[in-house]
Amino acid sequence: MLLKNCQLLLTQDANRRIIGNADVLIEGSTIKKVGRGLKAGRGADTIDCAGKIVMPGLVNTHTHLGMHSLRGAKDDAELFDWLKGIEATEKKFTAKQVKENTIAGLKEAVRFGTTTVYDSYKFPEERLGAFEKMGVRGVLSSTVTDEKTFRASENFLNSLKKRHGIVKGAVAANAVYSCSKEILRKVIEYSDANRLLRRIHIGETRKDRFDTLQRHGRLAVEYLDSIGFLAENCLLVHCIWITKGEIRKIAMAGAMVSHNPVSNMKLASGGVMPLTEMLDEKVCVGLGTDSVASNNNLDLFEEMKIAALLHRHHKWDANAVTAQQVLDMATIDGAKCLGIGNVGSIAEGNFADIITLSLDENLLPVNDIVSNIVFAAQGMNVNDVVIDGKAVLRDRSFVH
Amino acid sequence: MLLKNCQLLLTQDANRRIIGNADVLIEGSTIKKVGRGLKAGRGADTIDCAGKIVMPGLVNTHTHLGMHSLRGAKDDAELFDWLKGIEATEKKFTAKQVKENTIAGLKEAVRFGTTTVYDSYKFPEERLGAFEKMGVRGVLSSTVTDEKTFRASENFLNSLKKRHGIVKGAVAANAVYSCSKEILRKVIEYSDANRLLRRIHIGETRKDRFDTLQRHGRLAVEYLDSIGFLAENCLLVHCIWITKGEIRKIAMAGAMVSHNPVSNMKLASGGVMPLTEMLDEKVCVGLGTDSVASNNNLDLFEEMKIAALLHRHHKWDANAVTAQQVLDMATIDGAKCLGIGNVGSIAEGNFADIITLSLDENLLPVNDIVSNIVFAAQGMNVNDVVIDGKAVLRDRSFVH
Repeated sequence: MLLKNCQLLLTQDANRRIIGNADVLIEGSTIKKVGRGLKAGRGADTIDCAGKIVMPGLVNTHTHLGMHSLRGAKDDAELFDWLKGIEATEKKFTAKQVKENTIAGLKEAVRFGTTTVYDSYKFPEERLGAFEKMGVRGVLSSTVTDEKTFRASENFLNSLKKRHGIVKGAVAANAVYSCSKEILRKVIEYSDANRLLRRIHIGETRKDRFDTLQRHGRLAVEYLDSIGFLAENCLLVHCIWITKGEIRKIAMAGAMVSHNPVSNMKLASGGVMPLTEMLDEKVCVGLGTDSVASNNNLDLFEEMKIAALLHRHHKWDANAVTAQQVLDMATIDGAKCLGIGNVGSIAEGNFADIITLSLDENLLPVNDIVSNIVFAAQGMNVNDVVIDGKAVLRDRSFVH
Repeated sequence: MLLKNCQLLLTQDANRRIIGNADVLIEGSTIKKVGRGLKAGRGADTIDCAGKIVMPGLVNTHTHLGMHSLRGAKDDAELFDWLKGIEATEKKFTAKQVKENTIAGLKEAVRFGTTTVYDSYKFPEERLGAFEKMGVRGVLSSTVTDEKTFRASENFLNSLKKRHGIVKGAVAANAVYSCSKEILRKVIEYSDANRLLRRIHIGETRKDRFDTLQRHGRLAVEYLDSIGFLAENCLLVHCIWITKGEIRKIAMAGAMVSHNPVSNMKLASGGVMPLTEMLDEKVCVGLGTDSVASNNNLDLFEEMKIAALLHRHHKWDANAVTAQQVLDMATIDGAKCLGIGNVGSIAEGNFADIITLSLDENLLPVNDIVSNIVFAAQGMNVNDVVIDGKAVLRDRSFVH
């Protein structure tokens, strides 16, 4: 496949960030060459990218697509009341409903330019089917809270080993407040033995923070550190209510963080994820939308803008976070958070996960392309989506 | 014109808020009838609204479209440094450039479902031409800082009296820190004598607040009150750094407020406009995007979402502001802020300013239509735009 005449190619490759009038040659699932005047072999599929911005597909480091039918179902509550409010409906979800929800969620994510999704929920086999059907790169997990759910996760991940598709597995401990020390130890052992990512929700509310302190006599990150949970294959989701000392522990362990500002603001969690402090300590931070039940969409362009606004507002500092830093969170750093090194930038040898944006009214003029992507773009500017070298969306229509 | 088979008609008319499978009959520039099974006269233009959400066009209570070419030109500064940073380019703007910028801005605004725009900048005659060419309802002013700019404003407004188009005039005092008491008094006199809206930027930064206190020995709103600026035809823009006492003065005078959360957050203004306190005192609040140089787009759907998120976050309260309240700000209350009572809702006798939204992936399912509009929609979901009974955008393409 050849992406031809890209008007503005934003590579997210630090060696050559922006290339005008460039071509991207794709062979199989990977990027073969980036440059000018490239030719594809006979019969190759060519996408004309004149008048388009071409950039890496976005990476969503945290969502629950299985909850897609709950959009707008409960908007007026903070985390624990909200969870309670949707619980009854969630309990009734069948495997079929979860698969349908996951397909609907993937369609929305792809429409908005996301090419990699970390997704955690129940019924992993059905969700895997949805990812394979839609051709979206995924990291999938089945939420673990106890022995029974741990075994379900284990069974799914063991069966996934035999497949070689674009979906990887991960082990998802729900939270410190909902998992015993024994279960967390099993999550650590299984993820280490199988070289998988492990992730956990942490510090989403003040209540969560104080409950952990009371129950374990330590702050949540200190507790996770004491049992060996923090590591280079560990992703911590939310991290709103944590201290600088905890950030240093995360940094020392090489653990990573998924930042979900829209969901956090919508659920009125109060605090702000200490992003500038994280970046100062060189913690790798990715962006996540969380589910449409608390967002209420899957648009990472919007998530980038709101992340940038929130931290400027919070710090009274228009330089608290740059557009480039936020774009990194939604692309290369998000990919690192998920342990997928070779997506998130358009560089030779990487997987061909690429999107194009139309230069619609809201993207002109281009005084600063990164600024336009972060502060002016929206998901619906996306025109084409290529994942793993295959076109999934072309001219705003799904290929299949 | 007939809008036929509207799947979900969101009227913003408190008497009947949502009507399924409804028709809207338009005669000339006004809404003739809202109901079911309506028939248009022979040769009437019919828009099929099956599978669409139909709602009032959005009202932008504060922007400067003339700055459109400055999108992304200076992203890393707080208000006064930012103004300084773009000043040199602005000074060079010709009348032709401002007209082109205004047309580009109107295209973006209409694409995103805005049908009424309050626009202030220089070269009002050229901007008026842009509004008339694009067929967008407008309230236009020429920014006043001194005698010279006051006379320019006066000349424009006097000439506007002779026209009977969809553009109204207003008198725009720039700010307390940039206008003398004499100039503010002239603004009051002219707007009162000609029954026009007067507006002023106020409380956008802490510096602004303390400077006013030092110079006039009073808080900014108290100062405006003391010279008779506050009134039912007065719109105060920003109002971030004001006290509860000042809010009561605004309420007592019946003055109104334009809230611009995205621009305020992007410029790192620090504080939060006291929205819940304003609503408690029954102050009429509308939404504005401010210019693309500090937003960086003109999407009021995004502005609604970020307003809702900011106040929930700020108050640690998921009920700080409801989706319905935010939608009111972007429609009927915004219209009231501009002194245009008969737009902002789909009711018989009102001007026919109506938009349709496609039920794209991000708007399904519809558990709560108002929630979907505020928390899930984006400008590019807009499919058709009718202003003053004339189609401006149809099936996402401009009619002219």
